[in-house]
Amino acid sequence: MALHGEGAGSKKFAVVLLVFQILFIVLFGIFGKYHLDAAPPKQAETTTITSSGVRLAASTSKAPYEPDHAVRDYYPMFQDVHVMMFIGFGYLMTFLRKYGYSSLSINFLLAAFVIQWGTLMRGLLHLHDWQFEINMTTLLTSDFTAACILISFGAVLGKLSPLQYVIMAFIEVAVFSVNEWVGINYLKTLDVGGSIFVHVFGAYFGLAMSRVLYRWEYSMGDFNTLKFNTKTTDLFSMIGTIFLWMFWPSFNSAMAAEELQQRAVINTYFCLASCCVATFICSIFFHHGKISMELIQNATLAGGVAIGSTADMMVHPYGALIIGFGAGVLSCAGFCFINNVLERRLKVHDTCGVNNLHGMPGVLAAVISAIVCAFASESLYGSSLYKVFPSMDPDNGGRSPMYQALYQLSALGMTLATALISGAITGFILRLKFLDPLPGPLLFDDAAYFALPDQVTHDQEKHIRNQLEGSARDQYEFSAALPKNDRLLTH
Amino acid sequence: MALHGEGAGSKKFAVVLLVFQILFIVLFGIFGKYHLDAAPPKQAETTTITSSGVRLAASTSKAPYEPDHAVRDYYPMFQDVHVMMFIGFGYLMTFLRKYGYSSLSINFLLAAFVIQWGTLMRGLLHLHDWQFEINMTTLLTSDFTAACILISFGAVLGKLSPLQYVIMAFIEVAVFSVNEWVGINYLKTLDVGGSIFVHVFGAYFGLAMSRVLYRWEYSMGDFNTLKFNTKTTDLFSMIGTIFLWMFWPSFNSAMAAEELQQRAVINTYFCLASCCVATFICSIFFHHGKISMELIQNATLAGGVAIGSTADMMVHPYGALIIGFGAGVLSCAGFCFINNVLERRLKVHDTCGVNNLHGMPGVLAAVISAIVCAFASESLYGSSLYKVFPSMDPDNGGRSPMYQALYQLSALGMTLATALISGAITGFILRLKFLDPLPGPLLFDDAAYFALPDQVTHDQEKHIRNQLEGSARDQYEFSAALPKNDRLLTH
Amino acid sequence: MALHGEGAGSKKFAVVLLVFQILFIVLFGIFGKYHLDAAPPKQAETTTITSSGVRLAASTSKAPYEPDHAVRDYYPMFQDVHVMMFIGFGYLMTFLRKYGYSSLSINFLLAAFVIQWGTLMRGLLHLHDWQFEINMTTLLTSDFTAACILISFGAVLGKLSPLQYVIMAFIEVAVFSVNEWVGINYLKTLDVGGSIFVHVFGAYFGLAMSRVLYRWEYSMGDFNTLKFNTKTTDLFSMIGTIFLWMFWPSFNSAMAAEELQQRAVINTYFCLASCCVATFICSIFFHHGKISMELIQNATLAGGVAIGSTADMMVHPYGALIIGFGAGVLSCAGFCFINNVLERRLKVHDTCGVNNLHGMPGVLAAVISAIVCAFASESLYGSSLYKVFPSMDPDNGGRSPMYQALYQLSALGMTLATALISGAITGFILRLKFLDPLPGPLLFDDAAYFALPDQVTHDQEKHIRNQLEGSARDQYEFSAALPKNDRLLTH
Repeated sequence: MALHGEGAGSKKFAVVLLVFQILFIVLFGIFGKYHLDAAPPKQAETTTITSSGVRLAASTSKAPYEPDHAVRDYYPMFQDVHVMMFIGFGYLMTFLRKYGYSSLSINFLLAAFVIQWGTLMRGLLHLHDWQFEINMTTLLTSDFTAACILISFGAVLGKLSPLQYVIMAFIEVAVFSVNEWVGINYLKTLDVGGSIFVHVFGAYFGLAMSRVLYRWEYSMGDFNTLKFNTKTTDLFSMIGTIFLWMFWPSFNSAMAAEELQQRAVINTYFCLASCCVATFICSIFFHHGKISMELIQNATLAGGVAIGSTADMMVHPYGALIIGFGAGVLSCAGFCFINNVLERRLKVHDTCGVNNLHGMPGVLAAVISAIVCAFASESLYGSSLYKVFPSMDPDNGGRSPMYQALYQLSALGMTLATALISGAITGFILRLKFLDPLPGPLLFDDAAYFALPDQVTHDQEKHIRNQLEGSARDQYEFSAALPKNDRLLTH
Repeated sequence: MALHGEGAGSKKFAVVLLVFQILFIVLFGIFGKYHLDAAPPKQAETTTITSSGVRLAASTSKAPYEPDHAVRDYYPMFQDVHVMMFIGFGYLMTFLRKYGYSSLSINFLLAAFVIQWGTLMRGLLHLHDWQFEINMTTLLTSDFTAACILISFGAVLGKLSPLQYVIMAFIEVAVFSVNEWVGINYLKTLDVGGSIFVHVFGAYFGLAMSRVLYRWEYSMGDFNTLKFNTKTTDLFSMIGTIFLWMFWPSFNSAMAAEELQQRAVINTYFCLASCCVATFICSIFFHHGKISMELIQNATLAGGVAIGSTADMMVHPYGALIIGFGAGVLSCAGFCFINNVLERRLKVHDTCGVNNLHGMPGVLAAVISAIVCAFASESLYGSSLYKVFPSMDPDNGGRSPMYQALYQLSALGMTLATALISGAITGFILRLKFLDPLPGPLLFDDAAYFALPDQVTHDQEKHIRNQLEGSARDQYEFSAALPKNDRLLTH
Repeated sequence: MALHGEGAGSKKFAVVLLVFQILFIVLFGIFGKYHLDAAPPKQAETTTITSSGVRLAASTSKAPYEPDHAVRDYYPMFQDVHVMMFIGFGYLMTFLRKYGYSSLSINFLLAAFVIQWGTLMRGLLHLHDWQFEINMTTLLTSDFTAACILISFGAVLGKLSPLQYVIMAFIEVAVFSVNEWVGINYLKTLDVGGSIFVHVFGAYFGLAMSRVLYRWEYSMGDFNTLKFNTKTTDLFSMIGTIFLWMFWPSFNSAMAAEELQQRAVINTYFCLASCCVATFICSIFFHHGKISMELIQNATLAGGVAIGSTADMMVHPYGALIIGFGAGVLSCAGFCFINNVLERRLKVHDTCGVNNLHGMPGVLAAVISAIVCAFASESLYGSSLYKVFPSMDPDNGGRSPMYQALYQLSALGMTLATALISGAITGFILRLKFLDPLPGPLLFDDAAYFALPDQVTHDQEKHIRNQLEGSARDQYEFSAALPKNDRLLTH
């Protein structure tokens, strides 16, 4: 009976997932095709006819078997970003004592779901005669989309049913893609590391959703004890932290123009280093003179977010260090002081503290980008000025630095508004009984939807091992070698 | 006494290993040398004289210090594959409650053993005047060989002695290399991701061996409780799963022609995404409405196997999604339904379920490759037709698509037959008393060959910490700071 | 009170860290700037005027937007090295039962601290008109510096306060940088994998420091039980081991000349494979016929150190196998026999056995490099002789092979002397009461400085879950589905 009831809830999840997957296959079949470089030469020609003169030139000048460099140029950084999504976010969220299976598996599912749906949404926004092309950069941008959804996932981690998570991802990807599309194509926002469109959007979409989904249980005095970590879960969580920290330079430079990539790598590298140091300092001052693993696991990463919009600009190495330090302080302050205010006063329950790791540092990144843009000049960027700031190119509108700064801020405003509104609406949708909200006793508990490992008691095992003795009898050499049974069972 | 007995068994293992290692050093000394690109220019010339005209041209046209691109072109994907072998397979197998040391360490040993022996076997099959050359692709293909042996390892995991594992690896590498050599050079099979020669061979070699090594203990009602996982071991196992899943596009495209690599990456990426979604759906339907970690850990990877033989062909993105979905369903069905039949009826005990993850999806891959080859045409592949299907090139035999399809199936048949027969023979060899079969009580137990950590009881530690108090006396500032002893001991 | 006392110690640590971070920002601001390739074209020109004719030529011949290849050529290997520092060293050290938080977090902090301070030290030694340039190779060399400090960290792991660790890193980076600078620029030592300047220096600096910091507690009979590992911590530790093992070829070839990289990769790859096999053999012979995880975790890596100075030379594949085997035997002997002598007789307590993994294999590497240099000849290296051995180039001093061999040994001697003396002095400095030496009862204990997770008892949790039942009442579908409370609590 219980099993049936359970089954009822999860079967609905499976059916919805199946419907989505079929939809994806159909849409890929109708609209998706390989990009020129991944398609055979012949098909390439037919493509070029339908595409811009520039590409036509490019492709005709291409010898039939000229090696394609997309893999060589993008693949290593793509794989770093891929690791950030699946190992980074996945393990970062395993700190919850009883929710490790769910954190890791649902993270895995949502990312695999989003890289399909995100590719489709972006493709549908960039159709050329009813077709969109897929190449290495498609995979990269789809992983970026996954990052945004996984950030929101962190805000509601442990509090939704699998079905609710999937519906959340489906809606969020659609809104995210449109918001980013407007911000990049119309506002011509510069956001190489996605701090505005990925981090700010993901964080505030998730927080708005979490606010609407607030439940009376969260206000119970000892509710957060359900979130408690253990030494083992903290070590797993650090796997996620460290991979995110190490590969963040790839995240911030993968989409940069080739000659700006090195600067983006250098800036992010030093920014993260000083952010890590800042976190240890703040942990001592803000956390009763102790080093807090929660801060190490999260605040050390804030630097990557804070420099995300300006990584490829001339912030100079010392500028990167200052940004990283500031981000670390801001993030630690968020965890130690602001978190409680959000939860108690504003009734926003933020499981992973995404406001501190992605939200506020993302806003900081946007503000920094406005300042850096405002000071852009020929004397500073030389002949690369229009490479870094295409919108300032006279042939391309010729914006003034100050205008670009205002556009950066307007992109932040648009993203905040879109995220908060669409997040709130998504929250109301997720409150539908139909979507199987989680019963209170199953909050932060893998038992809700996962098959848990059966326990084997010491006696059971002793019984089995004893039975097995029989088989050892005829093996003289070994029967002597058998450790005592208790020895076998102590570990 | 017990120790002596134990020692006797393991010393034999060490001696055999030593003999093999000395043999490898001697064979490398006699036959192995650096490839042209890794050797000094002077040596290069002497090489070119003895090698084909093409290479001669290549090398003479090479300036003395012209940078060598082998590292740049192959190294990143090689390292991904390397991670799949050592972290991927290694951690995937740590789910066994009491066999973590062995899974990880023996996986490590076998892979390190095989990359030497595999290099030798392949080299001996490709001798030019009694020498074989070593370069980046040698390392890649040696890692592929390791994959095959580690798959077979998964079928017998927990049930053999270290000595038996090593003998298994030694025999299997030899047979694997010959089978692959015949399949590629004579049947001209297309198998860019090694689904036929690596996955099918490894899986069915292991299963045939496991059948011959079947022991009465396996039929004990509660035998499989020895295999039980825990929450912690499952989180370790997921490290392996996710790294395998993320880097599989490298596995399927590393050996592809440079201009086909991007397509291989794209196909594998989307194939795995839909396979992951399919696994969650099937877990609910096949596993009492619950999400099963065993399925997440394994079935999500089946897509990489299923598209392995056709990753660089025109399966189209939607085709990749369909293949991935099918592979996920097939693999889940294997774990939930076919596994029991194999174990109960056919007495094939498959510890890691390699039949479901590598065996059946590999067969599926071969069938798909036959279909895709059968539909190959100028109109679809344009001028790249002979690049993708070299055997269809008139200068190279000029096979018809249908013929190529039949050759794909014949390669599958040959591989299945070779794997089953050689696996069974290996099984009979491993039954020799001389090879120290594992006594029953030590099945799935690290205690058999590993030094286990000593336990420290609460009292022991309290005693030590108390002794240490003494040293703190003269440190006034700190003696105040000492946490209560119990506090120290609770964690 | 206790908290205050504690705070006092750690606040000092935070303040010192803050002072260093501010210092770094100021020094970067004054002396640091982007390298040509990462700076805008205009700035580039101004640079070239002030730099060598060679660079001038290079830069003027560079089109304004010509893509910069530094990222493509160095980034993948840099990221591998990055993983070795943060995941590799970090997790390798988590084997200590109660020191996992500290091992991982302090490793993280020290590395982030050193990549800033190391960049500065190296920069200050290479100033061009009071400025130093930062590019991809800067990041690589800074990570190499981190490796050296993390090796010393391993020798004193668990025995110092965070403040002492930071002071150690600050001093060691300064001495390391000068020693390496002299060795490379004046002695023209060849050490592509840093075995002499990184591994030997780090190991013996740490051991000398550990000797001076020896405390009576270490001689307590059961003292080392505080170091005991558990099955879980050993599996975490293996994450570090395997990533170090896999990516070591990147460590040994990243700084090699482009056309020598492939040889460096091949040599390191095979050297590590045979070292891994040797470790299993020696474990059986040296460790009572059992496989020891401590040996697997450490000795398998000795091959990477032993071939570090000659990885890009003509040692031949079989030579690499022999070096690896020898390194494995040496390292295992160190752990099983020499360690005790060091600790009992010489009062050198080596927590991670850095003498066995980095010290002795590093000395071996230097000796091997002397031998390989002594046999360098035109007939063996052809026209690449001066590429591999620049100091033998007549235009560059024209050293004889035998001379180069002597210089290799003199570099070893200088490094040993510098490391031992500066390590000992550092040890005396760290004995200052001001630096908060660790009270005895807090040795090897996270409790000293880390906030430990609060425990939740079975009853506490049961109480919370019961309260939550209330919220489930109105959800009919689910209340049926609720697992029994005990079920919830068993896992």
